[in-house]
Amino acid sequence: MTWLLSVEDCVDLVKTITLPTLFQVIMDAMHEDFSRWQDFNKQPRIATHYPHGVIELMPISDDQHYAFKYVNGHPNNPLQNKLTVGAMGMLADVASGYPILVSEMTLLTAIRTAAMSALVSKYCAPKNHNAFGIIGTGSQSEFQVLAHQAALGIDTVYYYDIDATAMEKFQANLANSDLDLVACDSVEAVVRQSNIITTVTASKVMAQILTDAMIKQGIHINAVGGDCPGKTELDHALVRRARVIVTYIEQTLIEGESQHLTTDEIDAEVWELVTNQKLGRQSDDEVTIFDSVGFALEDFSTLRVINLLAREKNIGQLIELVPSLNNPKDLFSLLQPI
Amino acid sequence: MTWLLSVEDCVDLVKTITLPTLFQVIMDAMHEDFSRWQDFNKQPRIATHYPHGVIELMPISDDQHYAFKYVNGHPNNPLQNKLTVGAMGMLADVASGYPILVSEMTLLTAIRTAAMSALVSKYCAPKNHNAFGIIGTGSQSEFQVLAHQAALGIDTVYYYDIDATAMEKFQANLANSDLDLVACDSVEAVVRQSNIITTVTASKVMAQILTDAMIKQGIHINAVGGDCPGKTELDHALVRRARVIVTYIEQTLIEGESQHLTTDEIDAEVWELVTNQKLGRQSDDEVTIFDSVGFALEDFSTLRVINLLAREKNIGQLIELVPSLNNPKDLFSLLQPI
Repeated sequence: MTWLLSVEDCVDLVKTITLPTLFQVIMDAMHEDFSRWQDFNKQPRIATHYPHGVIELMPISDDQHYAFKYVNGHPNNPLQNKLTVGAMGMLADVASGYPILVSEMTLLTAIRTAAMSALVSKYCAPKNHNAFGIIGTGSQSEFQVLAHQAALGIDTVYYYDIDATAMEKFQANLANSDLDLVACDSVEAVVRQSNIITTVTASKVMAQILTDAMIKQGIHINAVGGDCPGKTELDHALVRRARVIVTYIEQTLIEGESQHLTTDEIDAEVWELVTNQKLGRQSDDEVTIFDSVGFALEDFSTLRVINLLAREKNIGQLIELVPSLNNPKDLFSLLQPI
Repeated sequence: MTWLLSVEDCVDLVKTITLPTLFQVIMDAMHEDFSRWQDFNKQPRIATHYPHGVIELMPISDDQHYAFKYVNGHPNNPLQNKLTVGAMGMLADVASGYPILVSEMTLLTAIRTAAMSALVSKYCAPKNHNAFGIIGTGSQSEFQVLAHQAALGIDTVYYYDIDATAMEKFQANLANSDLDLVACDSVEAVVRQSNIITTVTASKVMAQILTDAMIKQGIHINAVGGDCPGKTELDHALVRRARVIVTYIEQTLIEGESQHLTTDEIDAEVWELVTNQKLGRQSDDEVTIFDSVGFALEDFSTLRVINLLAREKNIGQLIELVPSLNNPKDLFSLLQPI
């Protein structure tokens, strides 16, 4: 039997565990899984591009679990009151091939993306990292802020979006947090006052939201929004100047801020940070960039812990997705009598 | 909202529609979809091989629908009372990327594989095709027989398996059909008396279940069991002698009976038969082989019609797999109040 988590179930689960605790649990699982990077069958996501969006499958496995995510990216969806990004995930048992968990993954993707950014920020942030800046206050923004609050203890948030409504939404959603929220009137104003910056914008173009001139030394940047071929958020000169951390070089060179770099110009993969083979930040006066395009292992870690938590809390439902038969060679018995 | 079909729902749906009618509906849908072969984004399945089995994702899409199947193949599963092959399928809307249907696909895979064999048999069977032979009476055997009965009107079935229990199961499952069932004591005995033969065995080796010398001219063979690298059922000399039909050359050369052939040695793809660009059978005295490895378009056609039928018959349940939000840029509202 397969455990099934709908959106409602997943919300129930997050509220039961609480979001800060869930961030911590997922960061721990990611730390553990990235520490054994060599154990995984890895491949770049399988993307089908359409004029109006993209649909992707993201599989990964070790000897015990096989996980994949179905995810779309449709920038014009909000015009039809739909989400830009929607996702569904599955975790399966490698020994039998049977599905263990099918889950909504729209909410979980926002949570795991934020957890991943915060995990990398722990290795890359400057010593003084109380001031967090966010460019783009859409669907993922609150998760980025709260994951960094849980992991690094930030106290002030500078934020900007070209859409004033999105800024109001952001302010309202975080009104009850302990954070000082400072609305800014430009990208420059956010950048000038922050030690850690997350960019999470959605336009499908080669943008330069952060220019080289804007960024002072010592900053850490999580570039989350540039995640498909031809879509970036950062000035090439800034990327060249910075120490660049990626999740998985093979995929990032196709999709990330680093799509104009060569393998030699990437400074580290995340697994090299968590295993202490390389430093995230090497000095106080360098710029570090985490070029986050989202990799299947992040979903693997998330599905693995969500499966345990949902069953432990008994949230969700059991569903028969593969037949249980008295004789496994007698599939036709399902239809008897004909 | 996404429509969800469990195994129980799917059994209910098949019984409501009846299996012969469903075979016909799926064959019609396959005929329609293979006729517009050029409309599809096609790729070989994405397989992860383990020492004990394989796990695969099989995506395909046109401008309207994106479909994929998750499927495993674990030859030793029956020792743990599990099925060798289990599957789950999804159909999504390309315009929005949202999932439309999530369905069990173990039963549906057996049905669609049989429908596909029968569809090709209609183009390749000799004029006299009353006698159907089946080698391997495991999970898929009854479906192969009943699809051919529905599509071609066979009347006698010769059958053989190395496992006597599997033969008894086959006989019992089809006892109420209108077919004359003739148990045979060897592959040779089946082959000698049949006009159409389906081989559907499961061992993961380079086998020669049908040798060149066994097969007289004029026979049509559906080779269903050889479906991964290193796994075949037919003598190479037999494949070379025959007119070979495949679903999708690029995938078949990796996995099928044709894995030792070159592109030039494949005589036709199925879409060329259904569009009348090539003949299935060219003369009474040739051997034709359908090298069936299972292609994503077969699942696409099946999921497309099953989605319509399940909703029409109101069998299954609605589930929220992607959040419905008042403001699609406010994913965080799901968790409010925090």
